[in-house]
Amino acid sequence: MTEPAPVFTGGVDHERLTSQLRFILETDKLKRILRRNLLVDGSRRENDAEHSWHLALTARIFAEYAPEGTDIDRVVEMLVLHDIVEIDAGDTFVYDSEGAATQAERERAAADRIFAILPEDQAARTRALWEEFEARATPEARFAKAVDRLAPMLANWHTEGGTWVRNGVSRAQVMEKVKIIAEGSEALGAYAAALIEDADRRGYFR
Amino acid sequence: MTEPAPVFTGGVDHERLTSQLRFILETDKLKRILRRNLLVDGSRRENDAEHSWHLALTARIFAEYAPEGTDIDRVVEMLVLHDIVEIDAGDTFVYDSEGAATQAERERAAADRIFAILPEDQAARTRALWEEFEARATPEARFAKAVDRLAPMLANWHTEGGTWVRNGVSRAQVMEKVKIIAEGSEALGAYAAALIEDADRRGYFR
Repeated sequence: MTEPAPVFTGGVDHERLTSQLRFILETDKLKRILRRNLLVDGSRRENDAEHSWHLALTARIFAEYAPEGTDIDRVVEMLVLHDIVEIDAGDTFVYDSEGAATQAERERAAADRIFAILPEDQAARTRALWEEFEARATPEARFAKAVDRLAPMLANWHTEGGTWVRNGVSRAQVMEKVKIIAEGSEALGAYAAALIEDADRRGYFR
Repeated sequence: MTEPAPVFTGGVDHERLTSQLRFILETDKLKRILRRNLLVDGSRRENDAEHSWHLALTARIFAEYAPEGTDIDRVVEMLVLHDIVEIDAGDTFVYDSEGAATQAERERAAADRIFAILPEDQAARTRALWEEFEARATPEARFAKAVDRLAPMLANWHTEGGTWVRNGVSRAQVMEKVKIIAEGSEALGAYAAALIEDADRRGYFR
């Protein structure tokens, strides 16, 4: 782990600040975790950090499609955190059933290590938010997950099938993910279904 | 500009959704705008999208160092948006005084084009947030700017001078930026000053 600079300043709890800096330096690694999907222009694979940024932006723009009363600030906070476990666990392709079998365990171990770098109160909060996201137990988590599932579909449509074509993903497999989108947002679920139908018509599935 | 897929779904304002999708697709380009500074491990230059993600995370972790009453959700929203104008205007190195002379104009023209892709109400809100950030007129904007200025200092320290060494930046020039950090957060300003002092001792300036 990269250690923060050994500098001291008055007026702050040095141990606390050091833990926070250590977490900030550690999470820089998310910029080097590559996802399967490409940028919208097809030029290269997307990394987890820029992906998380784009979701935070997308969630805000699509806020009106979340169920009434959804706390979008909380959705954004979740999305900023949601992939940090992949620093250790790596990106598991959403259609990789072998990887999926061990994913939960690998990600839990990563969460145990990475969130715990923070001071105790912040470790507990970030860990709880990540677990809430994973469990899809609240409207915020379901909406965050919907945005996370929709984003690669947009990129895949715009790269003429992208990871669907490359990895031989079927329309039926993608439709399973559309269900998850619809559970977070009726409107975005309907949009995703129409997008997949159109992609199928264009021959973007195996 | 990349056009959204021509698909229709019932129950939503299609024109509105299309504008939102157009904005989301357009902002994907931020992932290809490179900044001067390197990742913390020195492996490559950072792009604006992953930088924006890291600031959103950092602002949340450092929330306690913002002046009392600062709305951190608003700070995060600002940071997610703050570099979008660079899609057109490019990244202007913070110590490039020639670039700085035309920066405001270039960025204003970019804002005119890019935020206006959104539906009118969202265009107005995002534009206003960006202007608030640039003007540093509120505690939220000053804190957001402080985090934005501190991040590359961390990366530079951890890459033994990074862009300071490469670009012959002096300690005095960096201290000007420390002032901006202190205006947003007393604690982070003090930390940045100690960091710069330590960097100087290590010979990270010209």
